[in-house]
Amino acid sequence: MAHQKYQELLQTLHDCMEECNHCYDACLQEDDVKMMAECIRLDRECAEICGYLEQAISRNSPYISELASICAKVCEDCGNECKKHDHDHCQKCADACFSCAEACKKVA
Amino acid sequence: MAHQKYQELLQTLHDCMEECNHCYDACLQEDDVKMMAECIRLDRECAEICGYLEQAISRNSPYISELASICAKVCEDCGNECKKHDHDHCQKCADACFSCAEACKKVA
Amino acid sequence: MAHQKYQELLQTLHDCMEECNHCYDACLQEDDVKMMAECIRLDRECAEICGYLEQAISRNSPYISELASICAKVCEDCGNECKKHDHDHCQKCADACFSCAEACKKVA
Amino acid sequence: MAHQKYQELLQTLHDCMEECNHCYDACLQEDDVKMMAECIRLDRECAEICGYLEQAISRNSPYISELASICAKVCEDCGNECKKHDHDHCQKCADACFSCAEACKKVA
Repeated sequence: MAHQKYQELLQTLHDCMEECNHCYDACLQEDDVKMMAECIRLDRECAEICGYLEQAISRNSPYISELASICAKVCEDCGNECKKHDHDHCQKCADACFSCAEACKKVA
Repeated sequence: MAHQKYQELLQTLHDCMEECNHCYDACLQEDDVKMMAECIRLDRECAEICGYLEQAISRNSPYISELASICAKVCEDCGNECKKHDHDHCQKCADACFSCAEACKKVA
Repeated sequence: MAHQKYQELLQTLHDCMEECNHCYDACLQEDDVKMMAECIRLDRECAEICGYLEQAISRNSPYISELASICAKVCEDCGNECKKHDHDHCQKCADACFSCAEACKKVA
Repeated sequence: MAHQKYQELLQTLHDCMEECNHCYDACLQEDDVKMMAECIRLDRECAEICGYLEQAISRNSPYISELASICAKVCEDCGNECKKHDHDHCQKCADACFSCAEACKKVA
């Protein structure tokens, strides 16, 4: 069953969604918000697609592979942007994004 | 920080979302789908609001309490419907729903 | 700006999402729900991805093209399933899905 | 049927979602992003709940009234924040938010 076969991916997606949303929230509270604008934008993109894929996998959607392919791309882009910033929340988010990108590629 | 304070709730919501979506998928494959129509409907309602609240909590939304209040109600309704059916996926889903309803009430 | 350039697509997606959700609701109330199981499933898939793409376009997401490509596929699958059923809600939904698939292909 | 009874509200929600997402995108491109941080945050909150309520209404959810009540509150908060800023996108967004808040209150 989809929700068991993909148990590890579901957790990885959940963790990445959380880190992205936390990073988004923290970026909005930084002193230099302008420098974080692209990070804010990609954090949201990444949190949304991770959440969407979680739902799709757990309802046994016929489109898991196509969605995972997009999700991998968004995770990579978000990880690359976060990686540029020294904030702890950005570095943690980058790690979560790169892990999630790898996990998504396996099912894409 | 919201995403740490609510770590347990986030996991409970994630588990409930998964069980609801799995129950929805399994109900659609049952022989007597008509009998499961209300279960299918509430499984979706519950999976959606749990996923929504997960996102809201982890982005430190100002509306966590109001959303948790609705989520508790949806979880209870879904749990009560699932409880009526003997299928293993319904019983497991009911348990996840009732746990999640309790967890949501604490922050509502 | 994305939300103006895509004004027509945004409305087409909105209409398709509405028809799919209405068809889903109506299918769950039919006498023979079992016959409608695949329709219920695809109605949800289609409503979700249309709603997601609406949000993505209007926030000027960098992933509009990739998402529109998936959305076109889901709309076609949902339209083909709905087309099989004589119910008025299914026929209307099929029309909305095929229109939306065409519109999505243009930006994919 | 829900999707016909609520036709006007569905369009109002769609318009508000679009304006909020456009305002979010435009705020992230402003020179003084820091000044727009709360606007960015509330634009997202508002776009998400409007999109959620659109889906809920069109699938004939049993929770329309409760969700509309939250949506009205989020729309008001977002409108009040946007109103403070002179940018054209903020003023237009504020108008859409206040209209949507009124429409939501009628079904709450």
